[in-house]
Order: sequence, then C-alpha cells, then structure tokens
Amino acid sequence: MELYQLNLLEPVNFAFLTSFISLFFAACLIYHVLKKKEGKPKMVEISKAIREGAKAYLTTQFKVMLIFIIILSGILYYVINWQTALGFFVGSIFSALAGYIGMSVSVRTNVRVANLARKGLPEAFKLAVRGGAVTGFCVAGLSLLGVTLFYFLFKDPNLTVGFGFGACLVSLFARIGGGIYTKAADIGADLVGKVEKGIPEDDPRNPAVIADLVGDNVGDCAGMAADLFETFAVTLIGAMLLGHLLFGSGNYVTYPLLIGSIGILASIIGVLSVSFRGSIMKSLYISLAITAFLSLVGFYFVTKQFVDFKLFYCSIVGIFVAVGLFAITEYYTSKKFKPVKEIATASKAGAAINILTGISKGMESVVLPTLLICIATLIAYYFGGVYGIGIATMAMLSLTAMIITLDSYGPITDNASGIAEMAGLPKRVRKVTDALDAVGNTTKAVTKAFAIGSAALAALTLFAAFQQETKLPIEAFTIANPRVLVGLFAGALVPFLFSSLCLSSASKSAFLVVEEVRRQFKEIKGLLRGKAKPLYGRCVSIVTKAGLKGMMLPVLLALISPLAIGFTLGAKALGGLLLGTIITGLLLALQMATGGASWDNAKKFIEEGYLGGKGSPAHKASVIGDTVGDPMKDTAAPAINPLVKVINTISIIFAALIMLYAIL
Amino acid sequence: MELYQLNLLEPVNFAFLTSFISLFFAACLIYHVLKKKEGKPKMVEISKAIREGAKAYLTTQFKVMLIFIIILSGILYYVINWQTALGFFVGSIFSALAGYIGMSVSVRTNVRVANLARKGLPEAFKLAVRGGAVTGFCVAGLSLLGVTLFYFLFKDPNLTVGFGFGACLVSLFARIGGGIYTKAADIGADLVGKVEKGIPEDDPRNPAVIADLVGDNVGDCAGMAADLFETFAVTLIGAMLLGHLLFGSGNYVTYPLLIGSIGILASIIGVLSVSFRGSIMKSLYISLAITAFLSLVGFYFVTKQFVDFKLFYCSIVGIFVAVGLFAITEYYTSKKFKPVKEIATASKAGAAINILTGISKGMESVVLPTLLICIATLIAYYFGGVYGIGIATMAMLSLTAMIITLDSYGPITDNASGIAEMAGLPKRVRKVTDALDAVGNTTKAVTKAFAIGSAALAALTLFAAFQQETKLPIEAFTIANPRVLVGLFAGALVPFLFSSLCLSSASKSAFLVVEEVRRQFKEIKGLLRGKAKPLYGRCVSIVTKAGLKGMMLPVLLALISPLAIGFTLGAKALGGLLLGTIITGLLLALQMATGGASWDNAKKFIEEGYLGGKGSPAHKASVIGDTVGDPMKDTAAPAINPLVKVINTISIIFAALIMLYAIL
Repeated sequence: MELYQLNLLEPVNFAFLTSFISLFFAACLIYHVLKKKEGKPKMVEISKAIREGAKAYLTTQFKVMLIFIIILSGILYYVINWQTALGFFVGSIFSALAGYIGMSVSVRTNVRVANLARKGLPEAFKLAVRGGAVTGFCVAGLSLLGVTLFYFLFKDPNLTVGFGFGACLVSLFARIGGGIYTKAADIGADLVGKVEKGIPEDDPRNPAVIADLVGDNVGDCAGMAADLFETFAVTLIGAMLLGHLLFGSGNYVTYPLLIGSIGILASIIGVLSVSFRGSIMKSLYISLAITAFLSLVGFYFVTKQFVDFKLFYCSIVGIFVAVGLFAITEYYTSKKFKPVKEIATASKAGAAINILTGISKGMESVVLPTLLICIATLIAYYFGGVYGIGIATMAMLSLTAMIITLDSYGPITDNASGIAEMAGLPKRVRKVTDALDAVGNTTKAVTKAFAIGSAALAALTLFAAFQQETKLPIEAFTIANPRVLVGLFAGALVPFLFSSLCLSSASKSAFLVVEEVRRQFKEIKGLLRGKAKPLYGRCVSIVTKAGLKGMMLPVLLALISPLAIGFTLGAKALGGLLLGTIITGLLLALQMATGGASWDNAKKFIEEGYLGGKGSPAHKASVIGDTVGDPMKDTAAPAINPLVKVINTISIIFAALIMLYAIL
Repeated sequence: MELYQLNLLEPVNFAFLTSFISLFFAACLIYHVLKKKEGKPKMVEISKAIREGAKAYLTTQFKVMLIFIIILSGILYYVINWQTALGFFVGSIFSALAGYIGMSVSVRTNVRVANLARKGLPEAFKLAVRGGAVTGFCVAGLSLLGVTLFYFLFKDPNLTVGFGFGACLVSLFARIGGGIYTKAADIGADLVGKVEKGIPEDDPRNPAVIADLVGDNVGDCAGMAADLFETFAVTLIGAMLLGHLLFGSGNYVTYPLLIGSIGILASIIGVLSVSFRGSIMKSLYISLAITAFLSLVGFYFVTKQFVDFKLFYCSIVGIFVAVGLFAITEYYTSKKFKPVKEIATASKAGAAINILTGISKGMESVVLPTLLICIATLIAYYFGGVYGIGIATMAMLSLTAMIITLDSYGPITDNASGIAEMAGLPKRVRKVTDALDAVGNTTKAVTKAFAIGSAALAALTLFAAFQQETKLPIEAFTIANPRVLVGLFAGALVPFLFSSLCLSSASKSAFLVVEEVRRQFKEIKGLLRGKAKPLYGRCVSIVTKAGLKGMMLPVLLALISPLAIGFTLGAKALGGLLLGTIITGLLLALQMATGGASWDNAKKFIEEGYLGGKGSPAHKASVIGDTVGDPMKDTAAPAINPLVKVINTISIIFAALIMLYAIL
C-alpha cells in the first residue's frame, strides 16, 4: 500500500495529482484576482448588481435542474445500477460547481479589470486572462478528478459513463437556459436602446442593460464552462471505454488520463506565460502555442513509455485539428478578411441582402472544418484504429484549460467595458476596456469552433463505444439496412428541431423584452433624459423565466429521441440516429456559430467608419444581421454540443437494455 | 412481329402508347389555349416583351449548356460506352425541349388568362389550369417516351442511366440559372420599387419589372418542368434497374413503366375534371384526388396481373406520401394556420425577430415530412424490399403530370395579374387575376415539397442501385468503417456548399439589379412620375449574365465531388457520400422551400390588413423576411433536387470504373 501511494507516475495517481494541482492553481489565481481593488463605489454598485443577477439566475436554474437530476438518478438506480446513478449525480454536481465557481470569479474580475485599466492595457489584460483561467482550471481539474475518481472506485470504464451523462445533461441545461437568457436580454436591449432610441451600448438608461451584462456571464462563462467540462469528461470516458472494450484492461485504458493530465500541466505554464506582446490576439496565440508545444513534448514521452508509439501521431493530429480550426474560424470571423467584408458591403443594399450574404457565408464556413475533421479521422484511424480517433480527440481536448481561459476572457472584458461605460470612467480608461473587449468576439468564436469540432470527434468516439457495447458485428450497421437508414434520417432531424426550439424561445423571449423596454421608456417619465432610473429587475425576471421555460422541450427531445428510436426500431436504428445527429449537429453548429460571429464583426467593421459608418443605412442593415446571428451563435449553436453528447451517452448506458427489449 | 405490335398491353408497348397519348393531349391543349383572344394591344405588347425575354434567356442558357453536354457526351463515349453517351445526349435534349415547349405555351397563356378574366373567375381559372397542363403532359410524355425508347433499343436498364443523367444535368442548369435569374430580378424590383420608392408590384415604371415577369417563367415554369422531367425519368430508371439487378429480366423490370403510364392516363382525366367549385384550392385538390384515386385503381389491376401483389401496398404508400406532404406543407405555408401567423406577429418587433422566427419555423417544418418519408421507407421495404421503395416512389411520381399542372398554374396567373396591372385593366378584372394569383404561392410551395420529397425517395432508389452496381456485399457499407463515415460527412457538406453558392450568386446579382434600378430612377428624368420609360433591357441583361455565370461552380461541384471521393477513397466512401448528400439535401431543401413560402405568406397576411397592414412597421419587417426567403425557396431549395440526382446517376455510371481504379 505504501509503495502504491508513492508511485506518482502510475497513470491514475498522476491524474489525481494533476487534478489537485489544477484546482490549487485555480485557488492561487482566485487569491491573486481578489487582492486587486474594485475601484469607485459606482463601479462596485454595478458589479454587485451583475453579480446578484447572475447568482440569482444560476441558483434558480440549478433548482430546476435538480428535479431532473434526482428523477433521472432514481431511474438510473432502478433500471441500470447504483454506480451509474451515483456517477450521474456526482457528474451533474461537479459540472454545476465548475460553472458556478468560474462565474463567481468572473463577475468579481470584471470590475477589477475596469479599475486596473486606469494603469494601462498590459496590466488589465493580464488580470482578465488570469480571471478567465480560474474557470479554465476549475473545469479541467474537476473533470479530470471526477473521471479518475470513478475509475479508481469501480475499476471499470463502463461505470464511469454515468458521470459523463450527468455532466452532459447539466451542460445542456446551462447552454440552453443561459443562451436564451443572454440573447433575449441582449437583443431586447439593442433593438429598443440602440436602434429605436439611439442610446449607446451599455447605457445605464436602458432597462435591459443589467440583464444583458448578467447574460454574458451566465451564457458565455457558466455555459462554456459546463460545456467543456462535459466534453473533457466524456472524451476521456469514451477513449478509456474504447481502450477497455478493444484491449481489455491495462495501459490502453489509463493512457487517456495521462494525455489529459499533461495538457493541464502544459496549460499552467501557458497561462503563466501570458503577457502583453504588442497585440492582444498575438499575445494569446503565443501562449496557446507554448501550451500546445509543451503538451506534444509530454505526449511523446508518455506514449513511448506506456503504449504503442504510433498513437503519438494520433495526438499530433489532435493538436493540428485544434490549430486548423482556430485558423479557419479566424479567417471567417475576423474583420481583416474577405467574408466579413463581403457581409459588410452587402449591407449597402439593405438588411435582406446582408442576411442572405451572412447565411451564405455561414453555410460555406462549415466546409473546411468538416474536411479537416474528416482528414483527421482518417489519419488517426490509420495509426490507431477507432481508439486512435479517441486519442486524437483527447489530445485536442487536453488544451481545454487554456481554451476556456481564452473564452472566459470574453465575458470578463465585455463586462469590464460595460462597467466602465456605466460608471462614466474617463475616456482614456474606456479606450483600454474597449480594446480588451474588441477581441472578445474573436476569442469566443474560435473557442466555440474548438468546442464544436472536438465535440464531433468526441461523439465519434462515443459512437464507436456504443457499437462495441451492443456487441453487434460492425457490419450490422450498414447503410443498406433500412433501419440504419431511417435512424440516420431521424438523427439528422434532431439538431434541426432542437435549433428550431432554441431559436424560437430566444426570439419569443426577446420579443417580450422589447415590449417591456418600450413600455418603460414610454411610462417612466424622464428615463431617456437620465432623470429617472429604469426598473432593471423587470427585465431580469422576464429573461430568467424565459431561460428556464425554454430549457424544457429541448432537453426532453435529447432524452427521449434516442430511447424512442432504440426501444422501437432497435440498436441498428439507434446507431444510425447517433451518427445522423453528429453529422447535422456539427454542420448546423458550425454554420450558426461562425455565421453569427461574422455578422457581428461585419457590424463592428462598419462601426469603425467604413461604408458610411455608424448611423448610415448600411449600419442599420448590419445591426439587423447581427441580431439575427446573436441567438444562432450564442443559443442554438453551443447547445448542440451537449445535445449530441447527451444522446450518445444515454445510448451507451441503455445499450444493453435496448438489445434485450426493442419492440420491432 | 405483327402479333407483337398488336399486343398493346405488353408493358413497353403500353408505355409507348401512353407517351404518345400524353403528347397528343398536350397538343390538343395548346390548340385550345391559342384559340382564345389575347386582348388589347397594350396587353399583347407586354406579353410579347415577356415572351421575348424568356425566349432570349432560354436560348442563351441552352447554348451554354450545349458546350457542357457535348464535352460530357464525348467523355462518356470514350470512358463508358456509346449507348450511355447517346442516352445522355438525348436525355439533355428532351429535358430542354419539355421545358421550352411548356414555357412557350405559358407565356402565351398568361395574356389570354388576363383577357378572359373579364368574363369572370371560373373561365379564366380553367384556362390557366389547361395552359399549365401543357407543360405537365409534355414533361411526363417526353420523359416516359425517352426511358421506354432507350429500354426498347438496348433491352438493358443499365444503358438507360445515361438518359437520366442527361435529364438531371439539364435540370440542374435550369434550376440554378433560372433560380438566380428570377430572384435577382424579383428582389431588385421589390427592394427599390416597393420598399424605397413606394410604387406597387408590377408597376410599369419599375425598370426591373419585365425581368421579374420573365423570371417567373424561366424559374418556376421551365425550371420546374426540367426538374420533374428528370425526377420522373430517374425514378423510372432506378426502379427498372433495381428490378433488373435483383430479379433479372422480366416483369419486374417493366412494371415501373406501367405505373408511370397509368398515372399519366389518370392525370388526363384529372385535368379534364377541373372546374371551379367555389374555391380555387378546393377545385384543384378535388381534381388531384380524382387523379390519385384513379391511379390506385389502375395500379391494383396491373399489379395483380404482372407482379407480386404485395407491391400494390407499396404503391399505396407512395400516393399517401404525396398526400401527406401536401397537407404538411399547406399547414406550414398557409395564412390560415399558426406558423405563418406567428411569423407575421413576430414582425411587430422588427425585421430581426421576423427572420429568426422564419428560420425557426423553416427548421421545424422539416420534421414531419422527413418522418413521413422514414415511415414510408420502412413500410415499402417491409412489403417489397428496396425494390418496393422504388415502386412507392414511382407511384408517387405517376402524379407528375397533374402536379406540374398545378405548379405551372403559378407563373401563368402571376404573369396574368402582372399584365392586368401594367395594362391598366379595370379593377373588376384585376380582382379576378389577383384572386387567381393568390393561390399560386401555395400551389408552388406544395408542389415543391412534392418534388423534394419524391427526389429524396428517388435518390434512395438510386443509392440502392449504386450499391448493387458496385457488387460489394451490402455489409461493406457499414458506418463503422471510417471511409463510409468520412463519405457521409463529405456528402452532407455538399448541399451546404451548394446552397451557399446559390444564395451568394442570387444575392450578389440582386445587389447589381438594385444599383441599376436606383441609377435609372435617379438618372432618367420623369421616370417616377410616369413621364419617361425605363430601360427594361438593362435589367434583363444583368440577370441573364448573372444566371449564366452563377450556374458554373455549383454544376462543377455536383460533377466533381462524387468522382473525386470515388476515385480517391473508393466505392464505400462514395456510398457514404451519396447518402450524406441525400440526407442534408432533403433537410435543407425542405427548410428553405417551406420557410421561404411561410415568410412570403406572412407578408401577404399583413398586407390583408392585419397587424397594421400595408406600410406599417410590421409590414416593412415582413418584406425583409420575404426577400430573405425568396432565393432560399426559389433558387437554392429547388436546385438541390437535381443536385442529389446528378451525384447519384454519375456515381452509378462510373461505379464499375471506380471499383477498378480507386487510389487509396
């Protein structure tokens, strides 16, 4: 026993150790951030309002989820086994916890970044990154800890799937609920405030402004945290499960834990290496490159030590997919390149042509990422079979902590800029916060592409695990079988219906916010002249209710569709359904995420003074395009990741039962 | 020999006879239509302008296509065989001919309908239907004739695939070119005329009005004719080929010819039964029901006589799919039901919410049709295997002549209403033409859903034929094989990229028309006051060039993608590609076709006086939604049908070569 505890190079122990280091590092960062001053009382007041709104929403959301979690835990306990039920419960709690801690720190970092902006860009930039890193290391650490713990307890990857399922479900709730909340508030604030009344973004006179700032946190920060928490966990579980099903027990089962651990350690150095190097994006990319390089070095040694060395090539593939996705997304969403400029130019012929061009660019933007994923799949398969695909995905996801750092940077600087505006900080300071905020859109877009791409690969791993679980020969899943065919069609439908539900909830809720904001401007005398205060709480309460209500149907769709197809048409049809969902899920998510970001930046491009600048007809058209893209990129697209994973994990859990009890 | 010629119940002879009857019936209808008077000189003048514009475009389009056709015929001659090359050439010519004749009659019927409208609705309605029927029976007759002829000549369904490929390719050209033409003109005319200058639809002062009226004919009439020509031909070929590959020669090969023939004969009675019965849609649906019922009676007897009677159930399934698709589309696109009303209501919060609601409804609208197709596939497979799916599709498509009649009714009445407006006919007459035109949108939407649904089923038949052609065991096409998987992903991409290209061409061309119309209003003095004439020819020339230029890339994509995947990754990957294209092709086409029609009718709903009526902010928002939907429903969506079929037929033709020469 004593010897066992000492061998820290043993994969499970190494994973435990890494997860504790990750959480400890997050704690150090929290201490570092909270030490900074909050600034003027006005700033503290605004920050507090955001913090309270965010906390109130997450608490309510968690209460609603808890009902689902308890019911499902009960079902899993009776129908499957207690280990899966326990895993599911703990997975849900861990995921919620990661999001909660991350967001709590984000909403405390924002005001400090705004305050530090007085000292100039480099200092404020560094603080924003470190605040974002808290979420990153909480997520990666807790995710690794959870999977390692359940594997350590039960010694069987099959019994860790419950943990992944719990993580996915919470992520699904968080993405949909948070996504509806943030976009209903955002659109409502913009349509009436900016378009109808002509007041600036984040103006304190706007009744929806607090809801909007809260939304950035519950959507982008807590939502993204839950999303990558589950992707990390589920990929780990999928790869370990494949290792177990294909190679029995041994190194191939625990090797994925090592890949994940190395990525976390490399990310710590990556985050510590961040400092301002002339351009914000450049600085972030350099640190990301350092992380990726160090990870590869680590992969080289552990692969040589533990498994067939060919798998190292798979891990290189994974890192390259991440880099490729970053480059492609940057091309499609940056103001520097052709796609965004084309959308901006199209705005000259009005809103309709702007929107058509944006939709067209969004559809085009799916091509290169998907081909990249296809090529990666073929290469990884060549070197390591389906297990190789799992390892490539795991290598890609080992960058998780660093990626979330980049992503959480977005809402922190967005809020910092909002607080600076609302608190009336001097122009010099606001210039710094605006500069910090400007790249937030790009970081959010590239990290979203990373999340979607990795989710598709992770889902392929889970799909392979599902096939193995059914114990059917792989030839059974031929597309010449009408069951598989019908399954594919049905699966392809799911992301369409799901997106439709998300977009419809977001736009209906935005409609309510628009009416409320219009009402307040009409009924509260002196509001527009700044002589009266708006009722912020009303808008917060509208979007809270909307978020919670809008979560239900999409979650039920995700839970019921695989079971309905599985228990009627059987495992072959369910296999088709899983793949169909992955395919259209990937395509729609990419289209909506990239298209939405391009619209947003086309608007920003015009606001920089091109094509007539702010207030021109082209600008008005581009605002409409941006609004259309908003719920696509921030509600529907990110929610598709956990959707695909919920469907895959629930299918793995129920695979054995489906083999026994399918009706037709 | 003498006996042979007498046996008209022998399937091939019966098919020959039916195709001649169909063409003779079309000739009678032409005579009937042309006998009617054209009306006032002003009307004749406008009608002539439309006719000349349409003829000029089709001729230019045909010249461009001819280059492709000759090159491809040469390639097929050298690489495959002379029969396929000949079939390809004749298929192209027949398809172009069917569209040309149909359109020529349509552009002569429109003015006569406008003139006859003075005598009241019933007379004018009947004439519009009969004018539309000319296209219907030319298409069905020529398509049946061509397939029968090539089967009669070569006695091998494999050697008829060239005919289908030719038909598909012309249809692809016609759909893309015509679609870009019609929508660039339509959007350009509307955005400047209706939105910026506030002049009514079809106002003679609008410089783009002739291009717009021509567009309705080259897009909806000639395009739809080519589309259903190829769907009919290709389904027939697919079903015969499956009969040949699965059962050898004999009745199962020729049975599909009988199904097609019976449908044509039933459609003749259907068209003759059309008379005004209180409501236009009701009158049309009654005749459609008569056609469907008579077809089923015919199917009953020939199935009993020639093949396993179980196949009769498959044909019932096919008819039910047609009816189901009609009902579902009607629900999503009619002003009477919830979806259109929701989009209309959303317009109150501005263009962005209108568009989001429309996109959401479009995505939702794919669910029921796809599930219907899934259930139909399972039932047809249950009764008749993959051959049964082919028979179900053939039964559905036997209604082709009647369906095209309904569809061609749309551009005829649209033009009639335009001519009445431009020639300044009395209000009483214009009320009649407007009433006729009002249902044109619905008939176009339901027939489009029919075309898309039948195309998906037809593609499944072709996909099964492709599998048989490769002589690979069906288990080879398992989704667990990464080649098949990658093929599926790559195939799923094609409709996304294709739609992106179509939408981008249409919106770029619309942009040019907008600038030209704005220029004419600015530079031609007195134009807005009606004191000067616009230069119609300029707009016609812009959209002609745009249509031709926009065709190239999408057609090349369709031709190259299957060959590129096939000759690199092999037949298994190509099988995946075919299915992937069918899946996302069906979903995107349905989404865009139905969504586009819903937007259009939401605008019409507001124009009837609801939610503020014409000129209100809600109306302006709904006009933007309608414009976004226009190229979706009339350019990209309908072009996806021939896209899917081109990819499938070319794969069948090259299947044997791919099996020999794939690189990887």
